[in-house]
This record gives sequence, C-alpha cells and structure tokens, in this order.
Amino acid sequence: MGRDDDPDAGGATNTDGSTDTDAHTDGPRLTHLLGRGTARDWRTVDAAEVDPVRVAVIGLGWFTRGRALPALADSDYCEPAVMVSGSPGKAERVAAEHDAVAVTYDEFLDGAARESYDAVYVVTPNALHLEYCRAAAGFGKAVLCEKPVERDSERAAALVDACADADVPLMIGYRMQTEPAVRRARELLRAGYVGEPQAVRGEMTQRLLDRIDPDPDQWRLDAGLAGGGALFDLGVYPLNTARFLLDADPVAAVGRTAATHDAFDEVDETASYTLQFPGEVDAHCFVSHDARHGSEIAVVGTEGRVAVRPAFFQDDDRVLHVSTGDTETTVRFDRVDQMREEFDYFADRIRGDAPIGPDGAHGLFDVRAMEAIYESEETGGWVAID
Amino acid sequence: MGRDDDPDAGGATNTDGSTDTDAHTDGPRLTHLLGRGTARDWRTVDAAEVDPVRVAVIGLGWFTRGRALPALADSDYCEPAVMVSGSPGKAERVAAEHDAVAVTYDEFLDGAARESYDAVYVVTPNALHLEYCRAAAGFGKAVLCEKPVERDSERAAALVDACADADVPLMIGYRMQTEPAVRRARELLRAGYVGEPQAVRGEMTQRLLDRIDPDPDQWRLDAGLAGGGALFDLGVYPLNTARFLLDADPVAAVGRTAATHDAFDEVDETASYTLQFPGEVDAHCFVSHDARHGSEIAVVGTEGRVAVRPAFFQDDDRVLHVSTGDTETTVRFDRVDQMREEFDYFADRIRGDAPIGPDGAHGLFDVRAMEAIYESEETGGWVAID
Repeated sequence: MGRDDDPDAGGATNTDGSTDTDAHTDGPRLTHLLGRGTARDWRTVDAAEVDPVRVAVIGLGWFTRGRALPALADSDYCEPAVMVSGSPGKAERVAAEHDAVAVTYDEFLDGAARESYDAVYVVTPNALHLEYCRAAAGFGKAVLCEKPVERDSERAAALVDACADADVPLMIGYRMQTEPAVRRARELLRAGYVGEPQAVRGEMTQRLLDRIDPDPDQWRLDAGLAGGGALFDLGVYPLNTARFLLDADPVAAVGRTAATHDAFDEVDETASYTLQFPGEVDAHCFVSHDARHGSEIAVVGTEGRVAVRPAFFQDDDRVLHVSTGDTETTVRFDRVDQMREEFDYFADRIRGDAPIGPDGAHGLFDVRAMEAIYESEETGGWVAID
Repeated sequence: MGRDDDPDAGGATNTDGSTDTDAHTDGPRLTHLLGRGTARDWRTVDAAEVDPVRVAVIGLGWFTRGRALPALADSDYCEPAVMVSGSPGKAERVAAEHDAVAVTYDEFLDGAARESYDAVYVVTPNALHLEYCRAAAGFGKAVLCEKPVERDSERAAALVDACADADVPLMIGYRMQTEPAVRRARELLRAGYVGEPQAVRGEMTQRLLDRIDPDPDQWRLDAGLAGGGALFDLGVYPLNTARFLLDADPVAAVGRTAATHDAFDEVDETASYTLQFPGEVDAHCFVSHDARHGSEIAVVGTEGRVAVRPAFFQDDDRVLHVSTGDTETTVRFDRVDQMREEFDYFADRIRGDAPIGPDGAHGLFDVRAMEAIYESEETGGWVAID
C-alpha cells in the first residue's frame, strides 16, 4: 500500500522527507520524532470549521456500547445519530442515551432515517458487513467498516466493489493505524533509525472465554458469522500492523491453528503463522484466545529494533521501546482513546480533501492473507498471497 | 529430553516436586523459586574434596582465549592443563600463560601429553570436532564438545558413537543449560507458573562482520568447516533453549535463510524458522549475523509468560521477565561467568555420580533439527525432524 491509501496522507513522514540510514546516530532526530507524542499528525481539517459527521452505528454489541459509542460521543468531528440493532428494544435504549434515532436492521435496509446520518460505522458480526455496507453505499453514505472486512475474501471483494460502484468513501477500522505509538514507531522505521528491517514479531493474546462468559453463543465462535477464530479476531492486528510499519505487503504465508476448548469447535482458538515480506523479511506471529492478556509488535533491523509493547489492546498504556547505536530508549505514551482517534480521522477525511485509508483494497488483502494461512495448514507449506 | 541427560539431574525441580498449575496465584512460590538466584542447584560434589579435572583445550581461537581459558583458570573444579593448536607458536604462547603443556593438533592425535589431562574441551571449527573427540575418546578421556556437535548429522552421529563405544562421558557445551536465569525460568515453567505453554519466541542477533573484521577467512563463513551460518552459530541457542525450557523436542520445522553480504556467499547470514513442539506449541525464531546485538527467549502460556531478555550473549546481564495473574515481575541477575558454570558443572559430573548432560544424543538432535530447517527451505513446507 502506498501513502495515498493510509492515514499518513496528512504528513506522517519527516518534515524534511529524509530517510537517512545513518539516522540512528542522530540524537536530535529521535527527539524530534518522538516529540510528536500523541499529536494528530494526520489532521487536515479544523473541526470547528466543518459540520460534524453524523454516524449511524450498525450493531450494538458490547464493543459498540463500551468502546465505540463513548468515543463517538466524545469526538470532535462526529456525532452518534442513528442506532441500528436487530433488537428494537436495544436500539431504543441505546438511542435514548445518545439522543439518537433508533432503527432496526430491517428498517435500516429499507432506508429508514437516511436523512439523519452522513456515514455508517458497521460493527456487526463479520458475515453481516456486506449486507449493511452495500445498503449504506446504495444510500450514498460514507462507510467505516470494522476489520476484518468480511468472513471471506469473496464477500469482502463484493463489499469493496459495492462501495466503489456507488462511489462512496470506504475505510476499514484499523485503529492501530491512528495509534500514536505505532505511528511514531513507523516514523522511526521510515527515517532509517533501525536500518533495514530484517524480521517482525507480533503477538496478541487474551482469555476470550473469561471475557465473554456467560455468552457461549457469541458470534466470534460461530464460523458462519465470524469466518475465523483467533486469526480473524486477533491475528489481523499483527498482520495489518506489520504491513503498516513496513509499508509493504506479504507475498506468502505459512501457519497453523489449534483449539483445545469445546467452545472452539468451529473456529481456531490459537494461530501461529509467518508472513513473508519482500526483501526476505519474515513476520512471526502468535495469537491466542486462551492465554494471559498480552501484546507486542516489534521490528528487528540491521541497526536496531523498535517495539511497541503493549501494543494492541485499548486498555493498555502503550510503550515504545527503541534500541539503536548504544542506547535503549523507553517511551511511555499517555493513553489516547483509540476509537476516538479512528472516528476523528475518518471524519477528517470525509470532510476534507485528503485521500481516505486504510481503504477496502487494503482490508481485502488481509482477508486473503488470512485465507492463505488457513490454506497453509492444509498444504503444510508456504502459500502465496495474491 | 528427560531429566536424566540434562543438568537438572542435580535437582532443579522444586523441593516438593509440585507442578501445581494454579501456582501463579501463589506469591511465596515465586519468591521461593527466584530466591535461588544464581545458586548452583546442579552441584553434587564439593570441589575441595575432589581432584581438579585437568583439561586439554583443543582449538585456541578468540573464544577460547577470551572466554574459555579465563573461566577455566578461575574454575573451582577444573584447570587448564594442555593447550592444543594447529600453530606450535600459538600453543606455546597460550600454554605459557597458563602453566600448561603445549602440543600441536598432530601431536595430540598421536597421544602426546595424554598423561597430563583427564578431559578435553573441543572448540575447533565444527567440522574438526569429530576427529579430535574420537581421538580423545580413544585415549579414554571425558569429552566436552562445543555446539553444534558437528557440521552435519552424519558426522555428529559418528562422534556420539565414538564416545559411546569408548565408554567416555560426552557433554555438549550448551551454556544456557547452566545459566541461572534460564534455569529459574525453567523452574517457573515446571511449577506451572504460566499455565500450559502455547508458544515460544527466540531471537539472537549480532553484527558478525564488525566483530571478526579484519578476518574475512574466519571459519564461520566456510561451509565446509562450519556446516551452516547464522543458523548453526546462533540458531542453535533459541532451538536448544526452547527444548530445555519446554522439556520437549520439536517434531517438525519450517524456515528459510537469507544472505546479503558477499562474505556470506557460502553460509546463511540470517535464518527465520518455526519449530513445532508437541501439544501444538510453535517456537518462532529469528537469528541474524547482520543486526544489532540482541537476544531473547520467551514462553507464552495460558496463565502468563516468562521471558529471558537479554538471553544468550555472555556479556549481557540477564533479566527475567515474568507476567502472571495481575503482576509483572522483573528480576535482574548478577552476571555469572557462563563458561565457568559450564566447566564446573562438567567437572562436577565427571567427579561425581550424577548423570552427565546435555549428552551427545541431545546435541545430535539439534543438528538434525537444523538440517530439517535447511531442507524446509528447499521443499517450501514443514519437514519432520527424526
């Protein structure tokens, strides 16, 4: 992916555009890059000068209620406008909290309240993304769709096509791409701070069954609704963040999955996989729905290493670890509301002229890469990602 | 590997033998285990009550002179007795520093000074291990052979057989198995402190060309003498330490290697590989002769994680990182002289009755595993390790 379809279009590179590979000896450069802290380097539009983007939120599960809606309510650029749920009662309850309009899934598809929103945020089970994104595109609305795009690449491609055909903006909800610690890590890499990347390591683990108890029917465990288990739910984080940090896409994958608990009779509980990036750079990743909470993404280069640890969970404070030359630097970031960053960035692109991204093609690639990992388990070897 | 052929035979398990999987909630247990610090839990013999083991050192390169000989001179249980080199002048010079006998390679093979030593430490290029170990075994001497055992598994097996046929003790020089931080990590794993292991991560990187400059003819770059490059030289550390920590052997491997500098026209400069352990536990490893100095070994389990970071280089202070329950613990170890630990352990086993290990079969397994990784590069898929 190039700079045109990611959040960097607003100018995340150094102001001098330099990628000096000897930069690791340049102390002021490190200070300069990290000095950005949690700054919104992607910002192109002044929130005070544009109308807020009115968002219809489709899918009112725990993530929406606990994470997305508070962020939307706090947003500088967006406001919650319409609440869409399969349950009329839930839609009413949630809408009442946010002074929003309540509609059911079916009503939404029929075009209800379409004058009340400018954009949709689709956070249903994966396999419902296509239907609601396609409907929203048909209404001419901008679309922010949760990752992974859909439960398989065929449906994901149809979703991307539907938005393209309707000529509406489509962004996939990769909150790591607007997470300041990850953006600072990427700037260090781009500035040549750790030399040439040689390897990437990614890890994301949690105890899903503890979190969702007592909801054994949760859609993440349903192959038809989710498409995949730990790989789709967690694995997409190290996969996509590796792509974002390296500014490159993997060409092949090898991996395997496992499951031990009965709850995971349809989908994978853990996934272990390696992504082969151009330049002989491998990304080794492990994700688990049955391990203690933890996450990390690290890039090892010829001149040093950069790691964000913890990396992926919203409730952790992010810490950036940089080793280069004869120093090891630890940078602790104030926590940002990652969902608010994502919503504000999305709205900045809707209201401004800068290109939007990560776009549909970018998200579709991840689904194909994950399918290659599943296929690798069958073939026992590397599978090309096309 | 079982407990009979590794340094734990002296009693590294808990005194109560417990492997309670709920141990992560048991604070005193953690304190108890870590309270061992750098203690020599493997010790079975009082150095004051036995004759020192007189060691013939075969191969006087920089590692021998800079690391092994100072440790041997400091050892409680050993003493440097004979210095063996291809260069008579070098043998004389080094012998003079240690009040030892100097002999050439050829003289050694002819049995020179055989009354002056009890054991040999073989630290020649990999492809010479067989010849000198076989000769030493023929003289009835105990053998401490550097890892990897030989340049290929056929020669490694011949070496192991030669020692078995002569009924002499053979130990392979895996200094991580007597490194206190690694032993404490293993005790935590055995006590169930992080639950069931799910994944392992290993990394070892250095800038070899900076270190060996101006010696471009260094044997590590010669395929005939070394057998392999980064994988043989560095990769054996995460591989063997993963086996030691998990107390298990991998059943299959997938991986690939790369090289960019001209100096690496015969052997690999970097290696990226995954080892499949029983119980669906994968170990992801990356090693490089062209990256900033760094190393780590980590085990992710259902209840927590244990990492030694830095892990493998002798000049680093070892730090043990333990996360379990709602705590993250960092334990900094006083640095031990790893070579001295290894020599003293070897001598303890020679002078005492406890079984010696890591033994030849254990070391041979690593060579086979590394050959499987190279083979995987050809086949593009998982290769069984037999």
